[in-house]
Amino acid sequence: MSRVVRFNRTGGPEVLQIEEVDVAPPKAGEVQIRIKAIGLNRAEVMYRNGQYTHAPRFPAQLGYEGSGVIEAVGEGVTDFAVGDAVSVVPAFSFLDYGMYGERVNAPVHAVVKNPPGLSFEEAAATWMMYTTAWGALIELGGLKQGEAVLVGAASSSVGLAAIQIANRVGATPIALTRSDKKRDALLKAGAKHVIAGGGAALTQQVLDITDGRGAQIAFDPVGGPEAAHQLRALARDGTFFQYGALDVRDLGVPVMDLLGRHLTVRGYELFEITTNAARLERAKRFITEGLTTGTLKPAIDRTFAFEQIADAHRYMEAGEQVGKIVVTV
Amino acid sequence: MSRVVRFNRTGGPEVLQIEEVDVAPPKAGEVQIRIKAIGLNRAEVMYRNGQYTHAPRFPAQLGYEGSGVIEAVGEGVTDFAVGDAVSVVPAFSFLDYGMYGERVNAPVHAVVKNPPGLSFEEAAATWMMYTTAWGALIELGGLKQGEAVLVGAASSSVGLAAIQIANRVGATPIALTRSDKKRDALLKAGAKHVIAGGGAALTQQVLDITDGRGAQIAFDPVGGPEAAHQLRALARDGTFFQYGALDVRDLGVPVMDLLGRHLTVRGYELFEITTNAARLERAKRFITEGLTTGTLKPAIDRTFAFEQIADAHRYMEAGEQVGKIVVTV
Repeated sequence: MSRVVRFNRTGGPEVLQIEEVDVAPPKAGEVQIRIKAIGLNRAEVMYRNGQYTHAPRFPAQLGYEGSGVIEAVGEGVTDFAVGDAVSVVPAFSFLDYGMYGERVNAPVHAVVKNPPGLSFEEAAATWMMYTTAWGALIELGGLKQGEAVLVGAASSSVGLAAIQIANRVGATPIALTRSDKKRDALLKAGAKHVIAGGGAALTQQVLDITDGRGAQIAFDPVGGPEAAHQLRALARDGTFFQYGALDVRDLGVPVMDLLGRHLTVRGYELFEITTNAARLERAKRFITEGLTTGTLKPAIDRTFAFEQIADAHRYMEAGEQVGKIVVTV
Repeated sequence: MSRVVRFNRTGGPEVLQIEEVDVAPPKAGEVQIRIKAIGLNRAEVMYRNGQYTHAPRFPAQLGYEGSGVIEAVGEGVTDFAVGDAVSVVPAFSFLDYGMYGERVNAPVHAVVKNPPGLSFEEAAATWMMYTTAWGALIELGGLKQGEAVLVGAASSSVGLAAIQIANRVGATPIALTRSDKKRDALLKAGAKHVIAGGGAALTQQVLDITDGRGAQIAFDPVGGPEAAHQLRALARDGTFFQYGALDVRDLGVPVMDLLGRHLTVRGYELFEITTNAARLERAKRFITEGLTTGTLKPAIDRTFAFEQIADAHRYMEAGEQVGKIVVTV
């Protein structure tokens, strides 16, 4: 038996329940993990609300990220052994797997060994944020030393990961945030500049910071009509990555900027990386190296106990965090 | 002395005047061409109107495309000799060169020898249209056999070039046009399907034609809010190339389509190809091969005499042509 978080209808945090269930032994290509820490993601809030890319099947499980110790391995699994400290990379559907539990199964392609020195809490806060940011900035965007990158929703875990990754390659992270409230925290987190509030002033500030060149990449989870101000602040051949669609209205794309500077606007999903073996391997290497050398350091905002899972969701929805919300088991 | 077309103020076709001017001998890196035929481009209408990417300096010259015979070569020019039949690829600014004249200079990087069997009229109608379409569809878009491509403003010269290039690589060109008037002409020009009128019906028709997969590329000179219907009709990992900005309003980009299918929206200009030596070389090879084998055949709508240059501009502005408007000298 294992205690797992499930829900039987979509709705607010209160629909999340802890239930005792039988966990099947791991099948071929799976491992069973005793979870020590869970990393929370906005996707899980959306899934719980019924607003995610796919609808839940009840009773529904959830959870993209977890870290713990392998308790059993399925048939044919040779890369992992009982006792290994591992984490889970989001590379599956909640219809198949969910990490919100004391003991869960996971597919081996999504499992990675923890680098030495990383706590379970940090490991549970690693893979969604760094892989998402790495995929856009490095793998697809080719961010280079000396270039500037606009980091939207910069105090989110993915935003903080993007700041660290930009610094790691010698680029200039410019943090975008709604108000001045998080300015100091963002500078401390590695942002070279912080721009609070949007509008035309954002464009001008980016041009000032970059001596008129503009930023090579904008990495934005919001979208909507405000996107135009970031697009106007992009350098020639710049790319605007939209990855979150927090604003579901049409993106406003100023066509003379798009055309005159050969800009690219690209929809981007983490799964473009995690469902491609070669890309995922490159991501694991870059991130593991960064964690080992300390240039990447997962930012944890706050931890909750397993029994407080609904409170942890409430806290995420309040949007005051800077970094990852982690649940310890 | 040479008769050349110039204008001293921006405005309608009537500002174009034929003047007798002294043409300087070709400088180092230039050739002098006795022009036999001129290919007209919408960019020249916009430049004449004062609506182009750069403002004219008066007296202003213009003209991106011409074909003729070399009369003189500048210092250090070894690839061309007097008597060569050549054409000019748009790879310069009107502030420096203009092909609307009996005798003009051109920079050698923009000059290409005419393939055997091509008339001067056809040669003058070749390079803008094929290079523009090749750059987006083949060089940047990687269009492959079996894929579908949406060709916006399909009866324009660039649209017709895109149809021929799509057929040449075994892709399916789907012509988009405003009304049913040009349907037969477009089918005759090689379009596999013609969709007249836009709106949500466009999306559904593309999905029907492609068995629900959508088109891999949309190649669109219009833009504006209507772009959304083409974006909804794109396949997973599809690309929308915007190259003309005929509608200067913001592009409407439906963000859930962008994100869910990892679409790319890219501003594209011919000069991305013609100012890059390696790309221009690949373009010249592809197009010259196509012209030689007959898989590419420039579509000329109508020819005008040099003295009728203002009428030729008026005809272009009326927008009834299918193919290139050529002026013979």
